[in-house]
Amino acid sequence: MATPIDPTAAGFLLAENRNMPMHVGGLQLFKKPEGAGRTYVREMFQAMSSPEEVAPLFLKHPHRSVRTGGQLVWKPDEQFDIEHHVRHSALPGPGRVRELLELCSRLHGTRLARERPLWEAHVIEGLRDGRVAMYTKTHHALIDGVSAMRLLASVLSTDPDQRDMPPPWGARPGGRTPRPVLTDDGGISEVTMTALRSALGITAEAAGMPGALVKTIRKGLRNETSALSLYAPRTILNQSITGSRRFAAQDWPVERLRAIGRSTGTTINDVVMAMCSGAMRTYLLELDALPDAPLVAMVPVGLNAKHSQVASAEGGNAVGAVMVQLATDQADPARRLGTIHRSMKDGKEALSSMTPVQILAMSAIGQAPAILTPMLRMQGIVRPPYNLIISNVPGPRSTHYWNGAQLLGSYPLSIPINGMALNITCTSYDGNMAFGLTGCRRTVPHLQRLLGHLDDELRNLETAAGL
Amino acid sequence: MATPIDPTAAGFLLAENRNMPMHVGGLQLFKKPEGAGRTYVREMFQAMSSPEEVAPLFLKHPHRSVRTGGQLVWKPDEQFDIEHHVRHSALPGPGRVRELLELCSRLHGTRLARERPLWEAHVIEGLRDGRVAMYTKTHHALIDGVSAMRLLASVLSTDPDQRDMPPPWGARPGGRTPRPVLTDDGGISEVTMTALRSALGITAEAAGMPGALVKTIRKGLRNETSALSLYAPRTILNQSITGSRRFAAQDWPVERLRAIGRSTGTTINDVVMAMCSGAMRTYLLELDALPDAPLVAMVPVGLNAKHSQVASAEGGNAVGAVMVQLATDQADPARRLGTIHRSMKDGKEALSSMTPVQILAMSAIGQAPAILTPMLRMQGIVRPPYNLIISNVPGPRSTHYWNGAQLLGSYPLSIPINGMALNITCTSYDGNMAFGLTGCRRTVPHLQRLLGHLDDELRNLETAAGL
Repeated sequence: MATPIDPTAAGFLLAENRNMPMHVGGLQLFKKPEGAGRTYVREMFQAMSSPEEVAPLFLKHPHRSVRTGGQLVWKPDEQFDIEHHVRHSALPGPGRVRELLELCSRLHGTRLARERPLWEAHVIEGLRDGRVAMYTKTHHALIDGVSAMRLLASVLSTDPDQRDMPPPWGARPGGRTPRPVLTDDGGISEVTMTALRSALGITAEAAGMPGALVKTIRKGLRNETSALSLYAPRTILNQSITGSRRFAAQDWPVERLRAIGRSTGTTINDVVMAMCSGAMRTYLLELDALPDAPLVAMVPVGLNAKHSQVASAEGGNAVGAVMVQLATDQADPARRLGTIHRSMKDGKEALSSMTPVQILAMSAIGQAPAILTPMLRMQGIVRPPYNLIISNVPGPRSTHYWNGAQLLGSYPLSIPINGMALNITCTSYDGNMAFGLTGCRRTVPHLQRLLGHLDDELRNLETAAGL
Repeated sequence: MATPIDPTAAGFLLAENRNMPMHVGGLQLFKKPEGAGRTYVREMFQAMSSPEEVAPLFLKHPHRSVRTGGQLVWKPDEQFDIEHHVRHSALPGPGRVRELLELCSRLHGTRLARERPLWEAHVIEGLRDGRVAMYTKTHHALIDGVSAMRLLASVLSTDPDQRDMPPPWGARPGGRTPRPVLTDDGGISEVTMTALRSALGITAEAAGMPGALVKTIRKGLRNETSALSLYAPRTILNQSITGSRRFAAQDWPVERLRAIGRSTGTTINDVVMAMCSGAMRTYLLELDALPDAPLVAMVPVGLNAKHSQVASAEGGNAVGAVMVQLATDQADPARRLGTIHRSMKDGKEALSSMTPVQILAMSAIGQAPAILTPMLRMQGIVRPPYNLIISNVPGPRSTHYWNGAQLLGSYPLSIPINGMALNITCTSYDGNMAFGLTGCRRTVPHLQRLLGHLDDELRNLETAAGL
């Protein structure tokens, strides 16, 4: 019954250690439906922990033995116990968002046990405003962050009256499964992974084997394949990390970002970058740790498959990565936004002039920084190729529900790695832009202060835009 | 900086697998001190997680590598993070004891990560009656259940006004450390382990080496060294187990047990056994799984060192084990109690006529059933040597406090193993007898029903005793 593990997935398992748990997470906030009783959260937990059937992806665990020749394989968990995976938790008082983020930080800092399927979900009560939270944690060997979000979205509905909806780990009849998310055997991240590998297979020297992959990516990291070479300074973010995690999250109305973009001729994504830039500048200034040279962010961007000349296996968009100069050396918010806008534009143009292999080399960095960085001994490189990763992934635009409970917000938790102690992932939903900041608690002190700085920077940008 | 791991401790680490986590646990209930504010539990958590110094026992983790020649060694955790070990948790509503036991069951079913020091403590709020709970979990390679209880007791005080008391994992100046609990280097269970090994060293054929130990113990298990040979039937308890845990606990006034003993000429310990016997009988009858032959319990008993002719290394008492016939075939509570009383008396007399090596063979079963059973492939033996382990460990008789918080009750969580799916450990404190039942949730269904049966049986025994 054992099935081979995809080499990329195996890479995530092998690269994992106590300092670098390799799971992605998600925090969702729900509003109880009208007329929900006092036992509502328990009922929600019970519905979450009793799907008719569990999807195969959530039933397998990695296994290695003499019989498998020392190779990692997937094995179904013969003693699968959903009570281990789906848990009912509560917040200590006073039940503010602060206590919720503390719990998520703690849960996100603990590694998943290899002897069981590599996921956990916590239905969390005790927020004093009555909202219900759900924190989920899935190993990167099973799914990537974007696919995890899509998987969640795939079980939601825009109909507040729909009921009998399965949890994200419930098996669904083939027809109802959104194609870009789930393959027939329930493998999710395989889509992206397969796309990456088959695309890399276009050239003989990048035949999809780990050795060749690493060689190609190394070139990308050293900017040898990139049309644009930026100088990234050393910062406190670019150190070895520990296993301690801190997570902070907040959202702001997309309309505020859009208004700034409209009046300055920039995009919403530019404004997101400018918010991060201003927040990082203030944060590093407070710590007396702002380098003279501006920070460089690696920003994964969607590429139209036709334009990029590289169709993914599923006909979706390929993903490329742009190096963006964050202009953290500039004090004026308007000038910072302008510099970022030009840097992003230059990066995208450079990307469009790159060859498919070059794009995919960049793309692989975006897909799998966590696995590649340890392979490449990034912390040994004198100068980091970039300072942090900022992703911005669009989510559903309309209000969604799970069995009548309105999804109020959705916040991604990502993977800090050695040399990249902070990850910022943004995602939009229902008119809000959510920022999820995941960092090593010991390398990135007072990470939660960045939320206040993001808020300040948004107001600074509004003022600068004359709003 | 690596230190060798005691072979017995290494045995617990090697015997551990996903179905048999090898940690002992404790659940304590505290009453907040007078005038405690709304943030009391958080303050208690902060005091628990910021000892001046952490004892060495709680700073080391097992390590094995090519450099250690494949041997397990203890290594100090260079990145020790107390936030990983001491956690602030809360109960979901309605915050009854039921929710507390559910949380403890879940926490007790998860293995400790080897890459960190092998312990966890949870300060738990959310009991609707305002009590504060603490669940602690420590690997059996560090400490045994009795030592864990003594360690806890050693940081408590009878003075409700005493403050600045350290948590159990705080390092204490040598002079204040109770000798039978902590050795100079902070090793706790080493006391018992060393005692066992040096005592076994009296004869040449039991020289304390694992091979010889196993040989001696195997004789004991097969009753070849025992003066009394009892027939233990096969029951649902004597099967292979899974990693799912269920914990149930409750206490009853010792005075009620003492009154029964007084009017029937039996001991408190006999009454404890009779309660367990009656409860097991009802439980197995309900499941239509009561064997015709009576169940046999293995009961560790304290032996006066002088009487047993085997002084432990620390001059304390040696521990022996008695096989007790539980008379579960008898419907009448009074007759059951009488049979148990005689069986316990016979067993103790048999024990006193045994040679020191024979006693230590039994004793080793009591000390370390978890490690020995897998070595002996107990589940492969057609007839189990006994059906379950019932321990009764005396605790402090007076009211104790931790920084002003009154300890209301203390309940032990133990280790079910393959072939022994249920463990009952009782401990007395401040006038109450606490029963802690730890079982495999899948092998011992509806374990919590045993609490009701224990309560019924206590009343039956009172009626039978004319009380």
